Amino acid sequence: MRFTAKDNIDIAGHRTGYGSPAWRDTHPAPVHNALCVDQLLAAGARCVGKAVADELTYSLDGENQFFGTPRNARAPDRIPGGSSSGSAASVGNGLADFSIGTDSGGSVRVPASLCGIWGMRPSLHRISEAGVLPFMPGVSTVGILASEFGQLDAVARVLLRSPTKPVAPLRRFLVLTDGVEIADQAVQVQVYAALDAISRRTGIQAEPIRFAQLVGEDIPLSDCNLRALRDLQTAEFQSTLGNWVETARPGLGAALSMAYGNVRDFDRIGALDSLTRCEWLFDRINAALPEGTVICFPTTPCIAPLKGSLTTLDAVTAFYTPTMTLTAFSGVARLPEISVPLLTVQGCPVGLSFAAGHYQDEFLLAALPEILAPGRC
Amino acid sequence: MRFTAKDNIDIAGHRTGYGSPAWRDTHPAPVHNALCVDQLLAAGARCVGKAVADELTYSLDGENQFFGTPRNARAPDRIPGGSSSGSAASVGNGLADFSIGTDSGGSVRVPASLCGIWGMRPSLHRISEAGVLPFMPGVSTVGILASEFGQLDAVARVLLRSPTKPVAPLRRFLVLTDGVEIADQAVQVQVYAALDAISRRTGIQAEPIRFAQLVGEDIPLSDCNLRALRDLQTAEFQSTLGNWVETARPGLGAALSMAYGNVRDFDRIGALDSLTRCEWLFDRINAALPEGTVICFPTTPCIAPLKGSLTTLDAVTAFYTPTMTLTAFSGVARLPEISVPLLTVQGCPVGLSFAAGHYQDEFLLAALPEILAPGRC
Repeated sequence: MRFTAKDNIDIAGHRTGYGSPAWRDTHPAPVHNALCVDQLLAAGARCVGKAVADELTYSLDGENQFFGTPRNARAPDRIPGGSSSGSAASVGNGLADFSIGTDSGGSVRVPASLCGIWGMRPSLHRISEAGVLPFMPGVSTVGILASEFGQLDAVARVLLRSPTKPVAPLRRFLVLTDGVEIADQAVQVQVYAALDAISRRTGIQAEPIRFAQLVGEDIPLSDCNLRALRDLQTAEFQSTLGNWVETARPGLGAALSMAYGNVRDFDRIGALDSLTRCEWLFDRINAALPEGTVICFPTTPCIAPLKGSLTTLDAVTAFYTPTMTLTAFSGVARLPEISVPLLTVQGCPVGLSFAAGHYQDEFLLAALPEILAPGRC
Repeated sequence: MRFTAKDNIDIAGHRTGYGSPAWRDTHPAPVHNALCVDQLLAAGARCVGKAVADELTYSLDGENQFFGTPRNARAPDRIPGGSSSGSAASVGNGLADFSIGTDSGGSVRVPASLCGIWGMRPSLHRISEAGVLPFMPGVSTVGILASEFGQLDAVARVLLRSPTKPVAPLRRFLVLTDGVEIADQAVQVQVYAALDAISRRTGIQAEPIRFAQLVGEDIPLSDCNLRALRDLQTAEFQSTLGNWVETARPGLGAALSMAYGNVRDFDRIGALDSLTRCEWLFDRINAALPEGTVICFPTTPCIAPLKGSLTTLDAVTAFYTPTMTLTAFSGVARLPEISVPLLTVQGCPVGLSFAAGHYQDEFLLAALPEILAPGRC
């Protein structure tokens, strides 16, 4: 199988650019591949290229003013989503069978959803991050984008170094109704149509559950993002790339300059309660997802925005806030999540995500074919 | 409470040295504290200094030819152990109430054991590593050294951001007999004397268990280190500091030069099976440690070697091999482990370690006073 690697994953002898010319030009080429790259090469895969990333991987757009916007094969006038934009595009356009990217706030899942391919964010820290540039150590994962389930499954098992052991059978299949309600009306209709199709094909009926039921407290799903993960992300970004931006003073692109202002001004001390909130949410969500349980929700609330449309604060907010509410659920709970290219709205793809409890990656990989039935994978 | 921070943990405005003059002089001072430092400051602790680390933290000795050997207060003619050597010394000599260090192969637990203080390696990735220099992403943790249990407990709960929830009662207390047998004869005697004292005081009887029983396969305890964690550590070190050493070509101290030769020549592809082995061991060990179970073994197999004695390959091997066999158990299984200053041999301290399952940090902190009885903590 041919694969590409996102521009924050080391390939020996080639500078790792982090989506930033300033970073690329001030850091020497690594001598070693990232460990995950060597795992893939040793398993027989062939690396055919490095893939463009959003600048410093701090974006979900897929537009990079220095390196261009990778082509969304299924919707060429629309953004591919990011920050693993080139990874998704290389798979979507058939240049690679799969790609490895990274996902902190949705950077694998969002481009997978918007480009109509498979994307997996594994459990936090299940795949080695040695040779992957440090971003948000308590949030970032290596992830996989692929054109078919069989490829995703094979690659995941190599990278996860799965012990051969029996996994639990599927016992419970949930749909997170608040997650569906955040999505555009047309996406909601497609989600329920897909669940109906699953039920007709396999007899597996999705049981609706609200976020408040899941965690046992009357709080909205948006709390995963707004009062929890988002603050951890920003604080961690300050301590990794924030230090570099403040000391190296690189020229930043327009989009990152706007986003970075919030990082620079972020009150990390005032936000420490959010870190405690993350642990609480991790604990509650995982208590509700014992092995045998799969939960489903749309990966993104909408199809890909048009290229060049995310230029005003209103447009950015309208795309990011609901998207990150969805992606923060697995983020804060450190869940494995797989985005499946099941939905189509206005001729454009949207992913339907399936998640399981923390460290239940192998169970999730085994349960998916059962839920989707052979014809779909 | 006054605390110090190991020299690989960012303090804003001060260069982070990584125990290496070459690193310190080529990297600017960070603008932000490490996130864990800000958590402690916000909780009211006062940072009184940066603490010496072994060069690039790649050692368990505590001897640094550039910055000197921090004083082992309980055994001044002996090494303090490393790589959180200055952290242990600052606590042992009363300059700080606690210190934050890091632990990949024992760098918190070993100096705690050899200096006669408390030391905790939490579950892998439970404490944010933002602002902590990247070392071995799949192995490294932030850890705590303290002079008393009450301090350790308070600091751990701040850094772990523990959700308030009931923990399981202590149901099973195990002693890992292979772990005891690795230790020097005099240490073995002290371990069993300590367990007898516990049993007399509290009625809690340690149940002996062998490693093979624990994992359900007839393999030795040393497999945690030799065919598993050690290879993951070396491969990850190549992809973080190895790239820096190969491209920046810094002058390395004598001890690190010797150790680094093995890193440079390491065949990471040939060792990929060890990564799979790590996952298998993680899985098996944790299956045997459900919440409610504590397992105990000596932290180190011996008291601190004399200063300047680890200069030959034989001496290094005699110290490192059994020590890392003990530390690799929690390392590979990502367990929380607390070293308690309970043993004395030839007037010098040795720690007795207590570990619990992955992510059961709060259970372990609650179970320890019960096992040790009020008088001991």
